[in-house]
Amino acid sequence: MNITREKVVSTLIKDKRVPQLETASAFASTNIALCKYWGKRDIELNLPMTSSLSVSMGELGASTKISLSGTEEIWLNGEAVSTNTLFYQRLIEFFDLFRPTADTKFKIETDTNIPVAAGLASSACGFAATVKALDKLFAWEQSDSHLSILARLGSGSACRSIYDGFVLWNAGIAKDGMDSYAEDLEYVWPELRVGILLVDSKQKSISSRDAMQATVETCPYYKLWPETVNKAIKVVDEALEQRDFWALGTTAEANSLAMHALMLATTPPIIYSQGGTLELMQKVWRLRAEGLPVFFTQDAGPNLKLLFLQKDEEKLKEQFAQMRVVAPFAKVKESTHV
Amino acid sequence: MNITREKVVSTLIKDKRVPQLETASAFASTNIALCKYWGKRDIELNLPMTSSLSVSMGELGASTKISLSGTEEIWLNGEAVSTNTLFYQRLIEFFDLFRPTADTKFKIETDTNIPVAAGLASSACGFAATVKALDKLFAWEQSDSHLSILARLGSGSACRSIYDGFVLWNAGIAKDGMDSYAEDLEYVWPELRVGILLVDSKQKSISSRDAMQATVETCPYYKLWPETVNKAIKVVDEALEQRDFWALGTTAEANSLAMHALMLATTPPIIYSQGGTLELMQKVWRLRAEGLPVFFTQDAGPNLKLLFLQKDEEKLKEQFAQMRVVAPFAKVKESTHV
Repeated sequence: MNITREKVVSTLIKDKRVPQLETASAFASTNIALCKYWGKRDIELNLPMTSSLSVSMGELGASTKISLSGTEEIWLNGEAVSTNTLFYQRLIEFFDLFRPTADTKFKIETDTNIPVAAGLASSACGFAATVKALDKLFAWEQSDSHLSILARLGSGSACRSIYDGFVLWNAGIAKDGMDSYAEDLEYVWPELRVGILLVDSKQKSISSRDAMQATVETCPYYKLWPETVNKAIKVVDEALEQRDFWALGTTAEANSLAMHALMLATTPPIIYSQGGTLELMQKVWRLRAEGLPVFFTQDAGPNLKLLFLQKDEEKLKEQFAQMRVVAPFAKVKESTHV
Repeated sequence: MNITREKVVSTLIKDKRVPQLETASAFASTNIALCKYWGKRDIELNLPMTSSLSVSMGELGASTKISLSGTEEIWLNGEAVSTNTLFYQRLIEFFDLFRPTADTKFKIETDTNIPVAAGLASSACGFAATVKALDKLFAWEQSDSHLSILARLGSGSACRSIYDGFVLWNAGIAKDGMDSYAEDLEYVWPELRVGILLVDSKQKSISSRDAMQATVETCPYYKLWPETVNKAIKVVDEALEQRDFWALGTTAEANSLAMHALMLATTPPIIYSQGGTLELMQKVWRLRAEGLPVFFTQDAGPNLKLLFLQKDEEKLKEQFAQMRVVAPFAKVKESTHV
């Protein structure tokens, strides 16, 4: 018998079902996985096959405002979201988990400063911000671990966006996922920079949700993914401790490519890369061959995120004129749980 | 103790070390693997980790003329090959295996009608034609299986180019590789067409020889390649017997992508695709979604080979204006062993 999302929510929020405020807002950073999450052991609860490790993106993310309302409405970046979109349905189903009575309606307004559904984890920060705002609205006063679990019920990688900095999502083994939440890694690396290179910011053709499911079901190499990503997590954790940027970068880049390799060998095949993606990869490799410590990671979209250090920022801006640079440790935008 | 190429050659040609002609010529078709050869269990003897299955490309291939000569010379498509190229060294080392005396010199002239080193198996047909010509020059009268073994010593996939039509290269298990040769599959499929789409005919940046070695050594998924390709061979063999083109095409395409997936997960990563390659793949998938039975396979280069049937040739020529169409069963250019 499978455990439902409703059951998990009840276990966590107990009888705190009555809104304590008319409106509440929160911000959550998007996050970039250095060791990727790819594949679920439980689709309903978004329980992952493996652990994963990410870095939160500071100022880049989503702000969500939730208000009690006479009508159910979802707004994204100032535009009303149509009720027949997948986005609308997914978010409403999520709110159904928390609705005190059937006729409680919410107005949900989300503003993001990143392209939506272009492999930049917009759903991760969106669901994390939503859960943080719900925590205020209902005065749950949940721990970060519990917020992380609640965010996971919306979107797997959202559980990592509850925190700033480096974050480890422990896969866990429990059937109800109560041990599957993210935790803050203590490492701080102020010189770390992430450069976002947009190749195409259009909606992707296949969602990461569907793509990872197809991979789990049909890729002949998938069974070796868990040991591949577990090894990468160990190396990256060690690299963070040692401040070994070369080890961090090579491992993150290889892990990203190992994930895309899985997709290439999936039936039907999934290729998120475009010509522009390949050209950028070749350019990164060229620069690295010339001695510049720069690496990339790619998620479920054609865009790349470069990893480099502050000292090389100017050189890289010259090479990639359109790059948006994020300093994950520049400042903490908001404490993780107010 | 490893077995050398010299030992294998001695076992096969015995004392037939004296040229019986001043000059001899032969042609061999290039071949396209439908189930790929990727990875060696013995580098010196080009013994493969797995079996593979190919189709020979009829008129597309190499003609090699070998003459006894006062000076050692290699000519490729009418141009003298410089002695300091890898190509020159590799071919001379191969001829060293057969040189009756240290001062016997050869003039080797090869003409190909395919781009060299662009993942179109130019070395496969080159070494196969060379071995066929040597067989005439020395009057060895070797069986096709033995010619296949000798060609393999030059380049692995050359062992398949000894034959026309569909060809199976049995991996074998013997240490000396005497059971690792190709054989003619009896299937004939006159309607089969292969369309060659050149994206870039420049020399590739990493040879398939080096690329497969890197894959074997560093790709975390490589250990699942043998079962992946063995399954594909079974399905393709069945598809050839049943004339099930859809099964043939989907399996060949998936196997090709599974090979490139290995390379993507290799350290450092190997990507033969270019932007144009990805665009062509997307176009093939679009046409197939519209009901056209067309598939692709990709080797160690950016170019694609389309698989389709005669009935769709005109439609596909409209879609791919630059495509060169080969009918593998149009005519037998030359019997496999004259």
